Parts: sequence; structure tokens; C-alpha cells
Amino acid sequence: MTTDDRMIAFGKRVREVRKGKGISQERLAEMAGIDRSYMGNIERGEKNITLKKAYEICDALEIEIQDLI
Amino acid sequence: MTTDDRMIAFGKRVREVRKGKGISQERLAEMAGIDRSYMGNIERGEKNITLKKAYEICDALEIEIQDLI
Repeated sequence: MTTDDRMIAFGKRVREVRKGKGISQERLAEMAGIDRSYMGNIERGEKNITLKKAYEICDALEIEIQDLI
Repeated sequence: MTTDDRMIAFGKRVREVRKGKGISQERLAEMAGIDRSYMGNIERGEKNITLKKAYEICDALEIEIQDLI
């Protein structure tokens, strides 16, 4: 997989876990301290987020980062 | 662990794996397309790197990102 493919896979996994937990994109964005439209970008793999932000999304979803990558 | 602790743990793990493979910091920096001094910052957990860059370091070390986090 290329790095871009992995970013897309990461975003898909965020969306999958978020939906599985019945959390709206708006709510997750709020919990992780991210702008809602930016969260949309992340879920589509369009943003190269920082590792710190990835950890914050994990905290908001109450999962380990290993579950997202 | 706080997010900062996790960044420090990530950096330590990069250094550990790099040394275990007998790769110099300079060489790893070159392989991952990162400035050498920046690689030092990463290994000390002082930089909030992007997920993409983390993947590139993994590629250079020929490991999976799961092995670093």
C-alpha cells in the first residue's frame, strides 16, 4: 500500500468505528477538538493529520490507535 | 498515558528499532526524507509528526507502524 492508500484506509476506519459507536461526525469532531469539515477531510483520507491528532481521535473513540491503522 | 507521553514513547521506539537494525540516525533521516536534526527531535518526542511521516519512517525501517506505537 502506498502512504496515500494508508491515509485513506485510516480515514475509512475512523468512519467505520465512529458509526459503529453511533457517534455523529459532528460529535466526534467536537470530542477530538477538530473542526467538523476537517473531520470530514480526515475520514476521506484527504488530510495528513499529525500523530498527536490521531491519538486524540482514538481517545475520543475510546479505542487504541492500533485499531485504526 | 498522555498524548505527549505517547509521542515520547513513539520516538524512543524509533530509536530502539533503528539502533537494533544498526542504522545511523543520519542514514534513517536520509531514507525517510527527513532532515537529520529533525530526526533527532522525533526520536526525543519533541516533534508532532504527521501520520504520513510516521509511515515513511516505518517504510525506511522496514517495519509496520504497529511496531512503533
